[in-house]
Amino acid sequence: MTFRIELKVRDYECDLQGIVNNGVYFNYLEHARHEFLYANNVDFAKLAADKINLVVIRSEIDFKTSLQPCDEFYVEVSPERISKLKFGFRQRVVRKKDNKVAVEALVIGTSVNEKGRPFLPNEINDLFPLSASKQ
Amino acid sequence: MTFRIELKVRDYECDLQGIVNNGVYFNYLEHARHEFLYANNVDFAKLAADKINLVVIRSEIDFKTSLQPCDEFYVEVSPERISKLKFGFRQRVVRKKDNKVAVEALVIGTSVNEKGRPFLPNEINDLFPLSASKQ
Amino acid sequence: MTFRIELKVRDYECDLQGIVNNGVYFNYLEHARHEFLYANNVDFAKLAADKINLVVIRSEIDFKTSLQPCDEFYVEVSPERISKLKFGFRQRVVRKKDNKVAVEALVIGTSVNEKGRPFLPNEINDLFPLSASKQ
Amino acid sequence: MTFRIELKVRDYECDLQGIVNNGVYFNYLEHARHEFLYANNVDFAKLAADKINLVVIRSEIDFKTSLQPCDEFYVEVSPERISKLKFGFRQRVVRKKDNKVAVEALVIGTSVNEKGRPFLPNEINDLFPLSASKQ
Repeated sequence: MTFRIELKVRDYECDLQGIVNNGVYFNYLEHARHEFLYANNVDFAKLAADKINLVVIRSEIDFKTSLQPCDEFYVEVSPERISKLKFGFRQRVVRKKDNKVAVEALVIGTSVNEKGRPFLPNEINDLFPLSASKQ
Repeated sequence: MTFRIELKVRDYECDLQGIVNNGVYFNYLEHARHEFLYANNVDFAKLAADKINLVVIRSEIDFKTSLQPCDEFYVEVSPERISKLKFGFRQRVVRKKDNKVAVEALVIGTSVNEKGRPFLPNEINDLFPLSASKQ
Repeated sequence: MTFRIELKVRDYECDLQGIVNNGVYFNYLEHARHEFLYANNVDFAKLAADKINLVVIRSEIDFKTSLQPCDEFYVEVSPERISKLKFGFRQRVVRKKDNKVAVEALVIGTSVNEKGRPFLPNEINDLFPLSASKQ
Repeated sequence: MTFRIELKVRDYECDLQGIVNNGVYFNYLEHARHEFLYANNVDFAKLAADKINLVVIRSEIDFKTSLQPCDEFYVEVSPERISKLKFGFRQRVVRKKDNKVAVEALVIGTSVNEKGRPFLPNEINDLFPLSASKQ
């Protein structure tokens, strides 16, 4: 099951090349991940207040097509368990008018407690099922 | 030879976890790449005005330590030719007070002309020497 | 007639106080103005490509309530002609759940041509009718 | 006494008009205010952690000249007590090469405690002396 949110380019997100700045896709991807987490009862802001920080440890992003002013697009999120302490998100940014892929990404995260130690809350554990082979 | 710029965290770059937002490192890395290019007589803004767009096609970023408010840091850039039409940047974000690496990245770019066709300006070609093995 | 767009806070827009960073409201307001302009056939990006730049010359913003993660809100835009060469936007950012006003703003702009001279395109002129008293 | 920090435009801060996006000046101004506060022993981030939030309640910004890629500039901060519970910052963004003023601003803030009640920490009180006439 792929989670999806719909967005539209905002002019201030475009840079002097007239296209969406590369760094902004990182924002789109993050926003989609958080919406995915909220939709699955993982409250990023509340966890942060409780000193449990979900952190990104690696991101791989392929930039394929540039979004432009007024483009409507959607961002997809598919969860994927990476290892006992790591969880991943397969993501795509897709332009709506022609279903062209703008960005493909794999973002890997973990979760740390107040002391900076790895600590996976149950709700994260449940959302990214650990296959037998990775235990 | 590694190129380097020095920066300092700005509070607005921190998010509700109280640390620099992941997407902001992308901005730091881009700024350092452009400074590196300007220092080597590659004018990103002028090229954009001439309809030659330098574009990132892939980025791999490892997040290792989180920068916090007031942290001073430097961003390193080392050029690396990837292939005939692709050039790369090995980059690191390093906290000054203890030389701890915050982020390690490989960013791969290419250059396209007005028609979207790959086109490497001479100044880029010279900056990223093509080794015999990659020709 | 008041123009309105609906948005939702994105976590990366929040700062270390856990609320939307003040500078981000400026982005919300700009995005709503551009959507208002696009909806009235004024194409900001196309004008920029034609070297006609719409520029903000003054903004007055009152910050009344802070938006928080997950808040849904709308941004209102009402056009108001300021003088022969200046046009204004009365704007409000309003939280949806209780209609509480987060931000009230007056943003005044003008338009300049390639030489930096004031130049109001017809479509702007028509959108902000000049009352007899201001001619 | 006017406080001052020096900065340089980063390309990603420029929008599709090829100039620094208006909202970014708000970031510059905020960063300069925080540096001013830190330099005077007011720790914005620590206060936030202690649930004392310094908040902007009004900003007036006049945009006079647009900064461009590679421009170096400085941001000035002069404190000004507005009233018993309000403090202000007179600010200017000035381009270095010709001392041309890019932005002039008055930013007014107050400070609230965990309950959202006005509460001015002593260090703020001392930094913005209350003249007899405003008591």
